[in-house]
Amino acid sequence: MKKPGAIYEGNNDCVFTVWAPEKEDVKLHLVSDAEEMVSMQKGDDGYFRATVNALPGTRYFYHIDGKDFPDPASFFQPEGVHGPSAVVNLYDRNSQLHRQKERLLLKDMIFYELHVGTFTPAGTFEAIIPLLDDLFETGINTIELMPVAQFPGGRNWGYDGVFPYAVQNSYGGPAGLKKLVAACHERGMAVFLDVVYNHLGPEGNYLSQFGPYFTNQYGTPWGDAINFDHDWSDGVKDYFIGNILYWLEYYNLDGLRLDAVHCIMDNSAENFWDIAWKEVNALQQKLGRPFYLIAESDLNDPKVVNDPVVGGWGMSAQWLDDFHHALYVLLDNGGKERYADFGSMEQLAKAYKDGFVHSGEYVSFRKRSFGKSSAGISGDKFVAFNQNHDQVGNRVGGERLSLLVDFERQKLAAACLLLSPYIPLLFMGEEYGEDNPFFYFVSHSEKQLIEAVRAGRRKEFESFIKAGEEFPDPQDETTFERSRLQWEKRKQGKHKLMLDWYKALIMLRQTNEVLQNHEKGGLHVNIIEEKLMLLHRQTADGKKHLIVLFNFSDDEVAVVMPSFKTCWLKLLDSNQHTDSHEPASRSPQQVNATETIRIAKASAIVYG
Amino acid sequence: MKKPGAIYEGNNDCVFTVWAPEKEDVKLHLVSDAEEMVSMQKGDDGYFRATVNALPGTRYFYHIDGKDFPDPASFFQPEGVHGPSAVVNLYDRNSQLHRQKERLLLKDMIFYELHVGTFTPAGTFEAIIPLLDDLFETGINTIELMPVAQFPGGRNWGYDGVFPYAVQNSYGGPAGLKKLVAACHERGMAVFLDVVYNHLGPEGNYLSQFGPYFTNQYGTPWGDAINFDHDWSDGVKDYFIGNILYWLEYYNLDGLRLDAVHCIMDNSAENFWDIAWKEVNALQQKLGRPFYLIAESDLNDPKVVNDPVVGGWGMSAQWLDDFHHALYVLLDNGGKERYADFGSMEQLAKAYKDGFVHSGEYVSFRKRSFGKSSAGISGDKFVAFNQNHDQVGNRVGGERLSLLVDFERQKLAAACLLLSPYIPLLFMGEEYGEDNPFFYFVSHSEKQLIEAVRAGRRKEFESFIKAGEEFPDPQDETTFERSRLQWEKRKQGKHKLMLDWYKALIMLRQTNEVLQNHEKGGLHVNIIEEKLMLLHRQTADGKKHLIVLFNFSDDEVAVVMPSFKTCWLKLLDSNQHTDSHEPASRSPQQVNATETIRIAKASAIVYG
Repeated sequence: MKKPGAIYEGNNDCVFTVWAPEKEDVKLHLVSDAEEMVSMQKGDDGYFRATVNALPGTRYFYHIDGKDFPDPASFFQPEGVHGPSAVVNLYDRNSQLHRQKERLLLKDMIFYELHVGTFTPAGTFEAIIPLLDDLFETGINTIELMPVAQFPGGRNWGYDGVFPYAVQNSYGGPAGLKKLVAACHERGMAVFLDVVYNHLGPEGNYLSQFGPYFTNQYGTPWGDAINFDHDWSDGVKDYFIGNILYWLEYYNLDGLRLDAVHCIMDNSAENFWDIAWKEVNALQQKLGRPFYLIAESDLNDPKVVNDPVVGGWGMSAQWLDDFHHALYVLLDNGGKERYADFGSMEQLAKAYKDGFVHSGEYVSFRKRSFGKSSAGISGDKFVAFNQNHDQVGNRVGGERLSLLVDFERQKLAAACLLLSPYIPLLFMGEEYGEDNPFFYFVSHSEKQLIEAVRAGRRKEFESFIKAGEEFPDPQDETTFERSRLQWEKRKQGKHKLMLDWYKALIMLRQTNEVLQNHEKGGLHVNIIEEKLMLLHRQTADGKKHLIVLFNFSDDEVAVVMPSFKTCWLKLLDSNQHTDSHEPASRSPQQVNATETIRIAKASAIVYG
Repeated sequence: MKKPGAIYEGNNDCVFTVWAPEKEDVKLHLVSDAEEMVSMQKGDDGYFRATVNALPGTRYFYHIDGKDFPDPASFFQPEGVHGPSAVVNLYDRNSQLHRQKERLLLKDMIFYELHVGTFTPAGTFEAIIPLLDDLFETGINTIELMPVAQFPGGRNWGYDGVFPYAVQNSYGGPAGLKKLVAACHERGMAVFLDVVYNHLGPEGNYLSQFGPYFTNQYGTPWGDAINFDHDWSDGVKDYFIGNILYWLEYYNLDGLRLDAVHCIMDNSAENFWDIAWKEVNALQQKLGRPFYLIAESDLNDPKVVNDPVVGGWGMSAQWLDDFHHALYVLLDNGGKERYADFGSMEQLAKAYKDGFVHSGEYVSFRKRSFGKSSAGISGDKFVAFNQNHDQVGNRVGGERLSLLVDFERQKLAAACLLLSPYIPLLFMGEEYGEDNPFFYFVSHSEKQLIEAVRAGRRKEFESFIKAGEEFPDPQDETTFERSRLQWEKRKQGKHKLMLDWYKALIMLRQTNEVLQNHEKGGLHVNIIEEKLMLLHRQTADGKKHLIVLFNFSDDEVAVVMPSFKTCWLKLLDSNQHTDSHEPASRSPQQVNATETIRIAKASAIVYG
């Protein structure tokens, strides 16, 4: 793997490397203080190189065809996407040499998806640090940062990033991120980063000035695909696979979430995933640290997490959108409008038992047969969630689950997730029922683009805009401001009750031996009444059992306790986390096999 | 699988089925004698159906949006691509119920690629039959027909076909093909057909009038890809995978050659190949006949032939272009102009030992790293050749190998191929050194298209057109006529000598136990002198050995006989198939281990 970028080697020496296979001449344009134009040497591999006396902080452009462009592999864009790149000391030991006693294992992680800009009033990495203890105390042990690659302006979800190696300046840049990672590791928390290898944003994307990073041979929702298998694609692979290694090596992260891997098109015999898998494994070995890759995949294809020896991509895990869809439509009758192919209890049962709900059948939303069964794949190969930035933010009103279903159903949803065999991911604020929306927002500087984004967004959601409903303007700063968390609510009324419920669920999940078993062999799901589901889990040796009763109906439901244990002890009851004076639950603390108990409407109860 | 087309069920009943998922109304327009417009019923599956009183031979169109179009799944286009479709009795037992005592196994096949239009003066299926005995006597036991799907006019390689289910009218239509298949089977010969599932030709392609058969989300050399994984693609899969089954079920073929599988884009979890593999296996079982799928693949990816349990596509075999390229450039110094990344003895050795020559290294022609090793894959998973329609016809002058290298080198090439561990494929006429060219030709009817084809072809070969060289006009009938074989030459002079050499090679291949072993374990290749190669083959138990000495140089070369046998007997010597009064060979009939022998220039000798 060739490493692009400006690598500061110490002793004032910096090696500048930039890939431009079809260019005759590229110059390094140093623009700090005294300007200087430095010649670069082109290698047979299409890379231009120069070793120059330059300290960290030095600003530079690459000069091509008479114009200045920032470095595609810039590590820092202090003045934003259109400004010069800056040399960074990646080996900076102060912020890097933090040790954890032990790294968390993927199977023990409780993920927390976090948008840096709206998580705190300051919207920086550093501002997150004082809140880590709150999170950790709730049981959350892994934060997953939405993309921090440099994007235009100061407001963006992160998916319009145009410098995959540069850490957003307004968030605090490279130093800020390193500080946050260190602070997490000190607490025994892990940090994941969301990275985007399927497209770049529309503003400040200068890559095509350097080389054929894109190909019109494959289409994606964002236009031309990234060129992973046509002419000159070796350099493109170096750039993006190198980016995976970069986060592992220099930022000491615990893993990455890879955005929309179904739009990474590579039909090479040795493809993106084959190479990434080998390179990551080699670097893990070398550094002696684990590193997890988690894919967002819209393929419903088990190959994503399967081992390479059976033709898989070898991802550590993948997101399980079907779990969200199956669950959400049971909680909210209106959900079918967005998730037309979901809505039956059997589908949620399949989501628990097998994973993918769509495993080959015709799906009307896609107008084709879709997916393949993931039955038998261990639960810790999937990350599940009740909500995430997409499911919330891609609604006209940006409504979180807390604005869509009642308090009892939110708790039911939390139980469905946290007692599942899957790695859970919470969307920031869900743990205390945050009720601010989370909108889609941008801060572009080009007028035409702003209009195009507004129009495109409105068109995408056309069919969902209700008569008279306001359509938030993505460019408007208030759209961003309205998306901020209200941290102070954690301690108040219903929010506090919700937080306690999440805490209790996580605590049970992390301490109960049965819930530690992610294998599907001993997991059974029964639909008992029309809207009552019994999830039965057990240890691998079949000696310990736990049942969860989910009542999705608006009525109390009676159920006969199963007989594979003589006596059941209630471990958790969502009904007891309520501010009602009379909790509606009728279920006893202890109950014998075959006895009948009553489960309150819209609630979850755990017996072990 | 839904079956499109007009299936004649006997008793005058014909079931018409056509897929048009986004159309409200499709009518069946019967146009034989009395015209009649028949209503069709649309099913939930997007298919329109009607059962009508119609005998075989009945002509019809489908009437959509006020216009008549031929059936995309037409089994016969008696008046060409723009005319009506005709009902065919696919169950016609007269031509179908021919039995072979035993079907040939793939590993025993000697393929013969044959273009129906230029193989005989008449250019029909029927005209081939009288020549079958000549082929069989040469040892050729399998003919592979270049595509016969209905194309515009009477002259075409076949890759501009627009009715994948219809057998070319000018070749003799469905009845003619069935007769030929029966005649082959009677002689114990097998028949393969070349089919194209990656594009349709430009004239007479009415598919888009019916449904979304194409998608602009993937590009191919022919424009938009066939839609195998976007909206409505189930019907497209039915159509093309159904086509595979059609040839097996109704034409009793032994297998298919699948053109350019690398341009069949399907990223579904359950993709084209998964489904094809299952459906073909099920139908083979049902019919009790083997059926082989052989891919043309430009991926150098072992997954094409690997088993589905390890993520493969499960093809019976795939074409091994690298063998051709590696060999050709050793035979013809000028070959590097077309095959810039080939030319070393080591590459031919790798082609013998491993299969793919490019297995991950940078390939300048492709401007990227390319391929993956196929080491360890049995030789009968690959089809090799010295020439084929592409390697010959995609030259400005359409020169066969006989026009590019001398007589001795042609014989050397034949030995390289037929003594290889691969399934050999001969290009029609090569067995007697046919010296007519084989050009690219078309017979379009649309003037603009004719000009576009001329211009496109000239542009494609621009860099190869030598000063003053004639560029043949693809549309000109004489281009087609000049490509015809001269069968009478088989018995004449050097042609007869060549034929005898091919015969001797095939005979040895088919009868020698060592050459029956396609596994690579016991195969070794040594490059002894700069241009002398020793191919060592042995039986699986290591008890019987055979060596082939290939001298690619212009000089006689001395070689010491290997010592794993005490005495070597000469089995074949290309030098003895020559019309020279003094054969140049110095190699003795029998020779002891470690003795030195002399191998004549440009020759091949086999000792066993």
